[in-house]
Amino acid sequence: MAPRTPRLVVPIDLKKKPWDQKLPLHNRWHPEIPAVAAVTSGEFFRIEMVDWTGGAIKDDDSALDVKSVDLSTVHYLSGPIRVLDTDGIPAKPGDLLAVEICNLGPLPGDEWGFTATFDRENGGGFLTDHFPSATKAIWYFEGIYAYSPQIPGVRFPGLTHPGIVGTAPSKELLKIWNDREREVEENGLQTLKLCEVLHSRPLANLPSTKGCVLGKIQGDTPEWERIAREAARTIPGRENGGNCDIKNLSRGSKVYLPVFVEGANLSTGDMHFSQGDGEVSFCGAIEMSGFLELKCEIIRGGMKEYLTPMGPTLLHVNPIFEIGPVEPRFSEWLVFEGISVDESGRQHYLDASVAYKRAVLNAIDYLSKFGYSKEQMYLLLSCCPCEGRISGIVDSPNAVATLAIPTSIFDQDIRPKNKIPVGPRLVRKPDVLKCTYDGNLPITKNLSATM
Amino acid sequence: MAPRTPRLVVPIDLKKKPWDQKLPLHNRWHPEIPAVAAVTSGEFFRIEMVDWTGGAIKDDDSALDVKSVDLSTVHYLSGPIRVLDTDGIPAKPGDLLAVEICNLGPLPGDEWGFTATFDRENGGGFLTDHFPSATKAIWYFEGIYAYSPQIPGVRFPGLTHPGIVGTAPSKELLKIWNDREREVEENGLQTLKLCEVLHSRPLANLPSTKGCVLGKIQGDTPEWERIAREAARTIPGRENGGNCDIKNLSRGSKVYLPVFVEGANLSTGDMHFSQGDGEVSFCGAIEMSGFLELKCEIIRGGMKEYLTPMGPTLLHVNPIFEIGPVEPRFSEWLVFEGISVDESGRQHYLDASVAYKRAVLNAIDYLSKFGYSKEQMYLLLSCCPCEGRISGIVDSPNAVATLAIPTSIFDQDIRPKNKIPVGPRLVRKPDVLKCTYDGNLPITKNLSATM
Amino acid sequence: MAPRTPRLVVPIDLKKKPWDQKLPLHNRWHPEIPAVAAVTSGEFFRIEMVDWTGGAIKDDDSALDVKSVDLSTVHYLSGPIRVLDTDGIPAKPGDLLAVEICNLGPLPGDEWGFTATFDRENGGGFLTDHFPSATKAIWYFEGIYAYSPQIPGVRFPGLTHPGIVGTAPSKELLKIWNDREREVEENGLQTLKLCEVLHSRPLANLPSTKGCVLGKIQGDTPEWERIAREAARTIPGRENGGNCDIKNLSRGSKVYLPVFVEGANLSTGDMHFSQGDGEVSFCGAIEMSGFLELKCEIIRGGMKEYLTPMGPTLLHVNPIFEIGPVEPRFSEWLVFEGISVDESGRQHYLDASVAYKRAVLNAIDYLSKFGYSKEQMYLLLSCCPCEGRISGIVDSPNAVATLAIPTSIFDQDIRPKNKIPVGPRLVRKPDVLKCTYDGNLPITKNLSATM
Amino acid sequence: MAPRTPRLVVPIDLKKKPWDQKLPLHNRWHPEIPAVAAVTSGEFFRIEMVDWTGGAIKDDDSALDVKSVDLSTVHYLSGPIRVLDTDGIPAKPGDLLAVEICNLGPLPGDEWGFTATFDRENGGGFLTDHFPSATKAIWYFEGIYAYSPQIPGVRFPGLTHPGIVGTAPSKELLKIWNDREREVEENGLQTLKLCEVLHSRPLANLPSTKGCVLGKIQGDTPEWERIAREAARTIPGRENGGNCDIKNLSRGSKVYLPVFVEGANLSTGDMHFSQGDGEVSFCGAIEMSGFLELKCEIIRGGMKEYLTPMGPTLLHVNPIFEIGPVEPRFSEWLVFEGISVDESGRQHYLDASVAYKRAVLNAIDYLSKFGYSKEQMYLLLSCCPCEGRISGIVDSPNAVATLAIPTSIFDQDIRPKNKIPVGPRLVRKPDVLKCTYDGNLPITKNLSATM
Repeated sequence: MAPRTPRLVVPIDLKKKPWDQKLPLHNRWHPEIPAVAAVTSGEFFRIEMVDWTGGAIKDDDSALDVKSVDLSTVHYLSGPIRVLDTDGIPAKPGDLLAVEICNLGPLPGDEWGFTATFDRENGGGFLTDHFPSATKAIWYFEGIYAYSPQIPGVRFPGLTHPGIVGTAPSKELLKIWNDREREVEENGLQTLKLCEVLHSRPLANLPSTKGCVLGKIQGDTPEWERIAREAARTIPGRENGGNCDIKNLSRGSKVYLPVFVEGANLSTGDMHFSQGDGEVSFCGAIEMSGFLELKCEIIRGGMKEYLTPMGPTLLHVNPIFEIGPVEPRFSEWLVFEGISVDESGRQHYLDASVAYKRAVLNAIDYLSKFGYSKEQMYLLLSCCPCEGRISGIVDSPNAVATLAIPTSIFDQDIRPKNKIPVGPRLVRKPDVLKCTYDGNLPITKNLSATM
Repeated sequence: MAPRTPRLVVPIDLKKKPWDQKLPLHNRWHPEIPAVAAVTSGEFFRIEMVDWTGGAIKDDDSALDVKSVDLSTVHYLSGPIRVLDTDGIPAKPGDLLAVEICNLGPLPGDEWGFTATFDRENGGGFLTDHFPSATKAIWYFEGIYAYSPQIPGVRFPGLTHPGIVGTAPSKELLKIWNDREREVEENGLQTLKLCEVLHSRPLANLPSTKGCVLGKIQGDTPEWERIAREAARTIPGRENGGNCDIKNLSRGSKVYLPVFVEGANLSTGDMHFSQGDGEVSFCGAIEMSGFLELKCEIIRGGMKEYLTPMGPTLLHVNPIFEIGPVEPRFSEWLVFEGISVDESGRQHYLDASVAYKRAVLNAIDYLSKFGYSKEQMYLLLSCCPCEGRISGIVDSPNAVATLAIPTSIFDQDIRPKNKIPVGPRLVRKPDVLKCTYDGNLPITKNLSATM
Repeated sequence: MAPRTPRLVVPIDLKKKPWDQKLPLHNRWHPEIPAVAAVTSGEFFRIEMVDWTGGAIKDDDSALDVKSVDLSTVHYLSGPIRVLDTDGIPAKPGDLLAVEICNLGPLPGDEWGFTATFDRENGGGFLTDHFPSATKAIWYFEGIYAYSPQIPGVRFPGLTHPGIVGTAPSKELLKIWNDREREVEENGLQTLKLCEVLHSRPLANLPSTKGCVLGKIQGDTPEWERIAREAARTIPGRENGGNCDIKNLSRGSKVYLPVFVEGANLSTGDMHFSQGDGEVSFCGAIEMSGFLELKCEIIRGGMKEYLTPMGPTLLHVNPIFEIGPVEPRFSEWLVFEGISVDESGRQHYLDASVAYKRAVLNAIDYLSKFGYSKEQMYLLLSCCPCEGRISGIVDSPNAVATLAIPTSIFDQDIRPKNKIPVGPRLVRKPDVLKCTYDGNLPITKNLSATM
Repeated sequence: MAPRTPRLVVPIDLKKKPWDQKLPLHNRWHPEIPAVAAVTSGEFFRIEMVDWTGGAIKDDDSALDVKSVDLSTVHYLSGPIRVLDTDGIPAKPGDLLAVEICNLGPLPGDEWGFTATFDRENGGGFLTDHFPSATKAIWYFEGIYAYSPQIPGVRFPGLTHPGIVGTAPSKELLKIWNDREREVEENGLQTLKLCEVLHSRPLANLPSTKGCVLGKIQGDTPEWERIAREAARTIPGRENGGNCDIKNLSRGSKVYLPVFVEGANLSTGDMHFSQGDGEVSFCGAIEMSGFLELKCEIIRGGMKEYLTPMGPTLLHVNPIFEIGPVEPRFSEWLVFEGISVDESGRQHYLDASVAYKRAVLNAIDYLSKFGYSKEQMYLLLSCCPCEGRISGIVDSPNAVATLAIPTSIFDQDIRPKNKIPVGPRLVRKPDVLKCTYDGNLPITKNLSATM
């Protein structure tokens, strides 16, 4: 008789704040954040997690909480988990940690989520120069399906996944991160022309004591202060995995993470009921609390065996993963294309980010012809199971990116038609929850919109 | 009794040169290139085409033809085809041309193709700074499958598609193209930092009389000279579709192309037996001659109805398409990730092109552990049905791109394993055909390779 | 703010017996079994259920419980549920009840199941003349995956579904059932030659007071006695749905059930973690306790609108269903064929049951070459996601049936090979739990087995 | 430089009769029919074939050719092909012949097909007691798609396959076939009750000199006469493969056929553009002429290695196959169910044929509510890519069979709806081509139809 149920390794009490949980959460990457629990290779275990904001965004009828959100506190992660082999010997730097996601989902009793765009001056997003206001849509779950009162006429099955799975960095790796990100934050506007086109600011989020939560290392000590000043923010995906926001990391998938510290110190969080490739609105998945059921395996010496560093150190590696067998199945896709010419008509050189921005803008404009506001479609394309592809990256000077949308998520036929469409295009009254934008940064205009 | 067979609208005789075909080919975009044939809305018709180089690359045992290829002559296109409605009225600017790809394939008797990387100083490719030499692999087709003597142990079904489908530009659109591409070619190195990372040169391919073929407009006249100086090169995808290299534009798919000139003047070419997202080696699909069986429909006024211009003119639009129902089906994928940190360790800002470059480099390094050379894997990832995704584009400063490879195309299990793999890793002797690189541009070094 | 969690309409306490549950279960179909709860059209609700035997089969190391199981008590169903529209008006005879399965799974804390074959003289199964002994395999769940200590080397994702979903029959329908099944039980051996080939007995299971549980109608009264004598057994699927054992009735699917009594009186049970088409071993799915999350909709007058009776009364109808979007995805299948020639070599006439029996026998024999016992493969083909097809039903005299097995559920390559297979065929020591067969019914011999 | 094109091993000239082809066809199975060509293991070759009737059914506006068809002449097969290994040694009895279908399709210039039901007294079909008249629908192909003027509003991609692939029987096997089929033909009505329900006659098709064509063995000799009297008809699938009508035997699939005579003597024919599981109307696929591109491999001793005989001799085996990777992809299916209760209300015992008959009848009745005649839907379900499953075969007394129909083949939404459907149900005027039924066999009445 085997154990019938995964061992609950990190429990969450949704009535408590992130920092009051029984096993304290953390929102920074640092090698010295102590493990809160340990698991054995082959063990089947469960981790629970709060949503990435730790409950800051509410199921209510206003987007003000989004507008004023304190992003210094994200993402609240569960862990670190120390991983041992069956002889009790911990994972070691140089090993590979194979993490199988056996199951996942929302926390029972908390079956809802949100998708939002941040205010341009407090977080932004991929299209923040077009959509500078904070907006919010609430999603309710009916088993595998999600629907939103703010985006009527749409319902889809979730490709649920954790936005963040990662191992703790070593000191050396942490320094590499902080150095290179400081460089981009300090000099980016001068040296990186893409900054002009993608308007989100800051360019990087450097360590800050503000909002910092370090798990078992409690505050108001010199040690806390030192670690908080060093600890990397959780916003970007990096060599340790982290916030890779790969939407296919769902049920049955497997991540191979490099191990940089003894015990691997696995952390996870930022559960998404569903997300589109790119997560374009930034607070862009259907964000929720949730649980993961995992199995870990230690591949001894696996970094050398399977990963090839590329860069100035042996730490410059990236994880590998395998896709699971139960993704939602769609047969019919409508595809939008973008090329690397920006909204002013300026030519960029093989820039897939610019091309993808144009593909997403094209899709929003198209779908808004079917009775939706552009804000609704921006949020939808951020969180529905759409696929963003780099189709061509060599045909100078144009990168070609595509965005493929499964047509069956809509309750009307959204394909182009040669005849009068069957039935009227519904003018749908409900819209996303929306705040005013009080700043004065310029909005990117579509120069042809008034022609 | 309906017609049983598509009408052959553009025939190809493979024994003749591109310029000697019965209906002359063209390799530039220009509104004044006359239509070579006309079709009616709803008609089922067939177009044949040469490979993109018009036969310059041979099925032999040397890559010298690749090294010395004259790229001023590509791509040889079939058409233009004038499209009329059932009343004989041509498509008009502002209409949308729905083109259904009912079938396609290699030309009977010519069932082979090639994948190549160009020399760094004559064409280059996405990874030309790593792989500066011209290389070539030949592929033979067995029905739906392709295999290459130069890349043993791999066989896969083709997701066959035309690299190029497009309508003729209007004069106004042509001028927009030439102006913006001249700007990037002349000023790019100063203003676009991505140029430093993606080493392919030139930055854009401007009109040139060298190698120019203009269909029915025959040479040595002032008119030819004028048009040749204006006519856009076919390398990049643009507002008219063109070289979008979207690998899913296969059997049963449908493209909605904007119409800019009377009759639409549809051209097509650059048939690919198979291609990976990005077509990374540049001569990167399995390039072949082929045929298309098509049906066109004119959606009157469809540009206004379905496309939204974004940019300084109403011509700044992009095509839409629907994916067909018979793509090859794969269940198991191994996925490689890249973030926007370049090979020197430098941080870039949300740059999906840099991130994708890293994902492809990671995949090449990984697969080369299974008995392959890196050149073999560079060519394979360029032409096999792998998927390139923009996974995260908002988590400053790192874009996250992924490359997913269907594992069943290999004859061995390429997944990471915890135990000694079953059976030996084969050292495979055959390799790609390869030339020397005689230039002296610097190779991008992997700084950690010798540690 | 919508309700976040489905309302728990039928709770199960696994520590209690089926007849001691808070809302009593039932194991018969009868119009007079009172509803235990009511739901409203559009409401999202949850039903829990015991396994079909109500806990009679244990997670232990013996099959004796299977051998001596009392089949007069199956299947324990949760319900009946009365369905009302949003005005409080109940579903009426002639309506159609659309039931969407939004989610389902094992009961938390009870994540295991069993697959078994009954003794030939106590239940039997499709191949009972070949495998007369009671056998059992235990399955443990790791999220979406199941594995069995008794069938090593196999692991697969579940296509979880309820074996039974049905509405209560009317008195008239109940009489039709009892009459026609009595006829087959009493006269079948004389008139139905298929009885000779499919050796399970009895031919039908008629109403019996033994083992009967009638929900809120408690025992030892004349009323109980009358209803118990009339109430139909739950073994076969019938006009009301019932035990249709359709393995694709999983997450996101929708059943359209005819309504025969006021309120519809929906009952469900017999949860399967996974099942192959045919459920050949009879106790053949991975049987477990579980939960369903449902939404019902009443289509007024829908029986007339959408169902066409075929038979002597307007009640001779069958349900319709739609398949959901998240089934496990397999690409590679090995397919076994059977024709309607039985094991003695005798020709049958277009008999799909005989053909399928041969296909299953062929598959068992084939797979047993890879280190398995035939009993292991019989259980596996009964519960893994294999597909049973009627391929040809017109080519007299042979029906052709096929059984397709997804190859990726095995940890070795089970396809035929031309060369020595890579690696040895493992002789796997663990086997199914097995009892002796003490009866003396003849075993069907494979006449060619000793040649 | 490899050969670019498959070698044409059996050419067909569509202007000639089946018996006038350069390599003569045959329509019987017999070991003494000489091979018309030879191929080598690993060779890539092409076989062309006429449609199964050899051109007897025309693309015209009458079904009279169907009504009066001479079924003694079917099926015209191409071959036999002798298979040698690379040393020139032929396949031998006991080997397994692996046949990969690399490609297939209609013959160029002949891109059309037909689906028909035979007259009840000249061929019949699965539902001949309901539909006794000869009917016909013509299909035209547009690349991967088929459409029929007689069944408007439907268009679907083909899952093209050969109905017949088989090896020649040995003398011993041929005798087994003739003996067992004579037994069923002579005694079936007394011993097989399924005959009463499935009304097609005769029960088996015994050897006959009428219509017999024996390839290179030309007529009017005692040898021809002897062989014609022994040679098995091609109607049923048997141990050698033959007319298995497995619709998934399409591009990229692989059949493993037992070898009974030296050289294997592979024959093939009866190409289907598309077929539903069961091919219910008998002339039921989209029947056409066509070509196959094949590769054969000899697995020496493979019958013993991979097949297990089941029956009185070692010849009682069945082929195995693997499904290919490019089948049409459908996501949404509407499923109809049938149980083994016949149209009179009589209970049958676990009879999958009866259950499937009911499922098909249910589907026809349902779909006819959407503007179609029942004859149209009978033909459609026979030839579209619908799936017929044996869902439950153990729940005495009811077998449960299901028929799943991909909804996207229709141009209207055919799912049940709760509200007035969007748009009118079209009354479609065109119907199948239909003859009178002049016989006087009783029609099976739906007893509830007039209630």
